[in-house]
Amino acid sequence: MSFDFGEYVNSGLPAAAQPWAGFPDYNFVGGHNDPAGLPIDKITAACDAVLRREGKTLATYSLESGPQGYLPLREFLVRKLKHYAALDCTTDEILLTSGSLQAIDLINAALLSPGDTVVVEESNYGGVLTRLNYLGVNMVAIPVDKDGMQTDVLAVKLAELEKDGKKPRYIYTIPTVHNPSGTIMSVARRQELLALASKHEVAVFEDECYADLVWEGTRPPALRAMDNSGRVIHIGSFSKTIAPALRVGYIVADWSLLGQLLALKTDAGSGSLEQMLLAEYCHEHFDEHLRALNAGLKAKLDALTSAIDREFGHAAEYEYPPGGIFLWLTLPERVDTSRLAAVAGAQGVAINPGHEWSLESDAKRKIRLCFANPEIDVIDRGIAKLADICFEEFGVPQFSGNRDRRS
Amino acid sequence: MSFDFGEYVNSGLPAAAQPWAGFPDYNFVGGHNDPAGLPIDKITAACDAVLRREGKTLATYSLESGPQGYLPLREFLVRKLKHYAALDCTTDEILLTSGSLQAIDLINAALLSPGDTVVVEESNYGGVLTRLNYLGVNMVAIPVDKDGMQTDVLAVKLAELEKDGKKPRYIYTIPTVHNPSGTIMSVARRQELLALASKHEVAVFEDECYADLVWEGTRPPALRAMDNSGRVIHIGSFSKTIAPALRVGYIVADWSLLGQLLALKTDAGSGSLEQMLLAEYCHEHFDEHLRALNAGLKAKLDALTSAIDREFGHAAEYEYPPGGIFLWLTLPERVDTSRLAAVAGAQGVAINPGHEWSLESDAKRKIRLCFANPEIDVIDRGIAKLADICFEEFGVPQFSGNRDRRS
Repeated sequence: MSFDFGEYVNSGLPAAAQPWAGFPDYNFVGGHNDPAGLPIDKITAACDAVLRREGKTLATYSLESGPQGYLPLREFLVRKLKHYAALDCTTDEILLTSGSLQAIDLINAALLSPGDTVVVEESNYGGVLTRLNYLGVNMVAIPVDKDGMQTDVLAVKLAELEKDGKKPRYIYTIPTVHNPSGTIMSVARRQELLALASKHEVAVFEDECYADLVWEGTRPPALRAMDNSGRVIHIGSFSKTIAPALRVGYIVADWSLLGQLLALKTDAGSGSLEQMLLAEYCHEHFDEHLRALNAGLKAKLDALTSAIDREFGHAAEYEYPPGGIFLWLTLPERVDTSRLAAVAGAQGVAINPGHEWSLESDAKRKIRLCFANPEIDVIDRGIAKLADICFEEFGVPQFSGNRDRRS
Repeated sequence: MSFDFGEYVNSGLPAAAQPWAGFPDYNFVGGHNDPAGLPIDKITAACDAVLRREGKTLATYSLESGPQGYLPLREFLVRKLKHYAALDCTTDEILLTSGSLQAIDLINAALLSPGDTVVVEESNYGGVLTRLNYLGVNMVAIPVDKDGMQTDVLAVKLAELEKDGKKPRYIYTIPTVHNPSGTIMSVARRQELLALASKHEVAVFEDECYADLVWEGTRPPALRAMDNSGRVIHIGSFSKTIAPALRVGYIVADWSLLGQLLALKTDAGSGSLEQMLLAEYCHEHFDEHLRALNAGLKAKLDALTSAIDREFGHAAEYEYPPGGIFLWLTLPERVDTSRLAAVAGAQGVAINPGHEWSLESDAKRKIRLCFANPEIDVIDRGIAKLADICFEEFGVPQFSGNRDRRS
């Protein structure tokens, strides 16, 4: 082999990927789901039914539904969004995508150019921070507390930007089960955010891909449900509620944007069989599925927090989240979680270091732990191993249970 | 609604899409397949088997196969490419994509920048011409004859480019069942193309998405099979052989490129259920499926050419293609096929006008007719209607069968 593409490709591309090495033994990263939450009998029956009834339509691009995606799945979404997020929409306002990541990429392609400014939550989904950095976009970071994005800070920052003549292209928020903190933005904060967006004439980009995973309190209406100006772009996903390997997400927006996003979606449609299966299964089973899934996730979260309490004691701080698939943990100041992630990763314990998931000044003390995928005993042993590694590297946690690691 | 994204989006985007209006009555456009070629019983059984055996793995991104895609499907491709295209490769050299369109977009993102030059066949897949135009890339067009890309012209053009200091980024070719002409490039031309690419140190981008649909003669080895330098990037698809609504394509390339393409593939994997189904079905049934499909396609092509001969007589010229799903037709000089496509489209007869599918100077006389999807009686009536419309607009064809339209 003499032709090496290493030098041949464009400059400025993201670093080349490494060959996949398999999943780590203790996998606390990635938005994987709980295999136990997948009722294979019902899923197989749904797939069987829809293939027998409509399988022939796979011979045409986008079945018989057109490029916005399988109509019965859009019909299900209309019902689901109304029921769970108080969001009224029509099937014409929905574009099905290859996961919500494609939704994010399409929206960014339509709205962002290098040098643009966007407003984001300070701790955030790592994949969004990576994308915005790669696109050369400036991020104005707003802190998050137990009620969600701090709209008093947002008001100050938007005023500063206006003074500087810099109009942000959008305010990106994960209002319901914020990534990584799990926070649910209060209704009052939602109202304030929308009022500020209106005042400054800015679009709002609402990412509700975890929003169905709520087991405490009442889920507030989506921002798009509380707005009647059309400025809110709403996205969601089936990855967290059904299965991430089915790549199905969606965008809810006015046609003035949706028609443009559709023109940028040059993939001749997203996978139709996955849309067919989801429609068939969810129309009948979504509500019970979600109840069972959330019960299982809460049990895993409880196992995770018990293990952390036992192994890390006071050395680990966190807010118990009201939903989701991740826990956002703060470790003592002496811990550099980038190093911790590297050392633990080499020993089969995969964690997200804070600096990849946050623009906060103390991000290096933080880690994100995903808990949906590993079995409870794996969670338990993985956290014990993480505490061992953390102690070896940084001398904390000193106490695990009633054991003093220094003695 | 007061917030209009029409003015808010980036400038220079492709024109916004219009809402989908349904399929036309006589649909001679789009790479749709023959519904009769989909054996639903066997497909349903394959889906059932793989879901029962491995359905739980849908809870993890990319199943248990990593981001290059479902390993059993890559294993099937290794066998298929060896058998049908004489191409030796390993599963590590394959990246599964969301259709071959995503493959094209990833390769272009890695290799092209505005102002770059590429070499393409003069008549070509419209989606590639659109993409290259949108990317601001200069196209050097090489004519195609019955043996494929004319390598004598290629030699001259590459020498000119070298003299001008313009190194093309790749030579893009659809060597086996060329779109739109259906031509299969001869082995001698393949050797000449590879020798020229080596001499000028240029990459070759080989698109074999129609290559399994051959019913006449012997299919030559893929270009990548005839090269040992690693410069040939090979892509293919299951859209044309199984079903286009399953969005599964693939790239075969050396890791020096594949690792870079993987880093650009930011969608967290392509749809896994579709990959699972294809692997399960194709391992057992691909060979017999292809034989039946090709027999059905040839019957439709025969129906199409019979209808054209009857309705257009000498007014339509074409080469009977040895495979594929389209016929490339030349009409008399007085016909402007852009206008014909618009007028016919308004009356429910959809055709591709030549200027969208070719850089040839006489492209405006040509049309592409896709024949895989419509039923034979629809093909028959659609061509009769197209002849009526063409006569009304342009006065040709004058004779249809033994009927003189002017009398």
